[in-house]
Amino acid sequence: MTAARSILSDLPEPDRRSTSAVAERARGVLRPAGALARLDDVACWLAAWQRSPEPVVARPAAVVFVADHGVVSEGVSAYPPEVTLSMLRALREGSATAAVMAESVGANLAVVDVGVGNPTGNLRREPALDADRFAESLEEGRKAIADLDTDLLVVGEMGIGNTTAAAAVCATLFGGSTDAWCGTGTGLDDAGLARKVAVVEDARQRAGPCAEPLEVLRQVGGAELVAIAGAVVEARRRSIPVLLDGYVTTAAVAPLEAQAPGALDHCLAAHRSPEPGHGRLLEQLGKRPLLELDLRLGEGSGALAAVPLVRLAAASVTEVATFEEWGLGPG
Amino acid sequence: MTAARSILSDLPEPDRRSTSAVAERARGVLRPAGALARLDDVACWLAAWQRSPEPVVARPAAVVFVADHGVVSEGVSAYPPEVTLSMLRALREGSATAAVMAESVGANLAVVDVGVGNPTGNLRREPALDADRFAESLEEGRKAIADLDTDLLVVGEMGIGNTTAAAAVCATLFGGSTDAWCGTGTGLDDAGLARKVAVVEDARQRAGPCAEPLEVLRQVGGAELVAIAGAVVEARRRSIPVLLDGYVTTAAVAPLEAQAPGALDHCLAAHRSPEPGHGRLLEQLGKRPLLELDLRLGEGSGALAAVPLVRLAAASVTEVATFEEWGLGPG
Repeated sequence: MTAARSILSDLPEPDRRSTSAVAERARGVLRPAGALARLDDVACWLAAWQRSPEPVVARPAAVVFVADHGVVSEGVSAYPPEVTLSMLRALREGSATAAVMAESVGANLAVVDVGVGNPTGNLRREPALDADRFAESLEEGRKAIADLDTDLLVVGEMGIGNTTAAAAVCATLFGGSTDAWCGTGTGLDDAGLARKVAVVEDARQRAGPCAEPLEVLRQVGGAELVAIAGAVVEARRRSIPVLLDGYVTTAAVAPLEAQAPGALDHCLAAHRSPEPGHGRLLEQLGKRPLLELDLRLGEGSGALAAVPLVRLAAASVTEVATFEEWGLGPG
Repeated sequence: MTAARSILSDLPEPDRRSTSAVAERARGVLRPAGALARLDDVACWLAAWQRSPEPVVARPAAVVFVADHGVVSEGVSAYPPEVTLSMLRALREGSATAAVMAESVGANLAVVDVGVGNPTGNLRREPALDADRFAESLEEGRKAIADLDTDLLVVGEMGIGNTTAAAAVCATLFGGSTDAWCGTGTGLDDAGLARKVAVVEDARQRAGPCAEPLEVLRQVGGAELVAIAGAVVEARRRSIPVLLDGYVTTAAVAPLEAQAPGALDHCLAAHRSPEPGHGRLLEQLGKRPLLELDLRLGEGSGALAAVPLVRLAAASVTEVATFEEWGLGPG
């Protein structure tokens, strides 16, 4: 895991000068102080990580990582594994929800296959990824961002079985009762949910206490989760703020924060899904979601829905006149 | 009030056939059933009131009504009344927050002066509007919508002193403790808030139990509140769904619902502001807000922020392929 750990060394700090400049402008614009409180905070966050006193969302991009999971053989999903490949196609051809949403909010969408048809190990019985595949997946995530021309990144995922991986990552990383990290995913019935809990319980017992947080991702995660972690670190290095999608995406990056506190400061929680583990995880990470609309799709959809809010937040500071410019004193 | 009451006669019912068509398509599109639950509901609502099985947000429009209030002489606002005129100009010239937000979300913005420089009566001591001005304001609201080419209407307001009018309308209409309907508005201190509560208390005593809900709007409302009520009724007649902004806008239309239950079914609560009266009012009206971002600006800003979500909701049903079209059975 030495190579993996090294991806977190010397992460850029926020640009506090840009944050201060935006916060000061927000205090002076033509509206009562604090009237857009939450959106002003979003504008400051964007400034910090774009490293610019004039934050802007002009070229948002979404990257959706897609992979198959060996754990589906345990009957943990309401859908058969073939659906992953079909959805990969639907995302690429513009027929899936995230593709339509990306179009609606003016975001470019890239869909990255990190193992469709090449399922990871069954995380109940064995490590999901061996060391080589872990390193490859991390690199695939990094590469997907390296050439991207964007000022706001949405990361998302698709992979039948991957809420089981998300639950296993969270249970192993943070402890607590296994039940509390497991939800019905795409629509499990009670028996299915019970199977999922048993699988996650076995997985966390097998993985045991891991020497370090990123090892959890290798043991009980999945290829697209690892790629997301790689992508999010690369975004940090390239001054690209990130909107996190739902449970799977957030679980994928949680080990980064556990390994290097502050590693997710450039990431905003776009929404909270009704998967019970997601709310719990956001609390653990100290992240307050922008939207709470009971979205539970994944594919980056919840984060795409939040893109216009971030765009609006930036414009509402940079493009609104100040009281001074307008010749009015504050009241 | 006979003329006023008559504006509510024979309101169009929702187009249930379009709603059913959209609900059925939502059940069949390429995602787990209910994965976008809240957004699917929004798409159905849009279909019902656009009277179309293919709801769309292609030409959103915002109309912001602006007026002055006699009650400002009671010291109920953190800002002097001259700010209303200045903000009217800033909205028209694109320098104010709502103008920037409208641009950001692709909405046309119209700013309608319904009495800047011509303050209404001091609602603590006398009716805010006499019968003639009430009828005129209602008509100004109606006319602002009559020629609008839009598929989604945002209504908003600006008027120093108007959260006092909103509180007075709610307290008179729904009863309960006056305190609970009063908040700090644009930034009152404790003494200011105490003055505001006393003013609202006097106003509701003076107005007494009104013969009918719309009379409350005349007694303790304001010109822009009455115009908003007129605009929202006209939108219903023209098959234009409405996004309600914050406390003032919602208070302006609450008498319509009290007068004719169901009169606000074509209106969605875009957000909940931190003004305590707003949350209370939304509960009273049975409306669940889309956004909860602590926005407290008015000007239509909270509703503008929700426009992209409504656009997204429609596209996520009409433009996503169905399982059948995609050759996949539901799991």
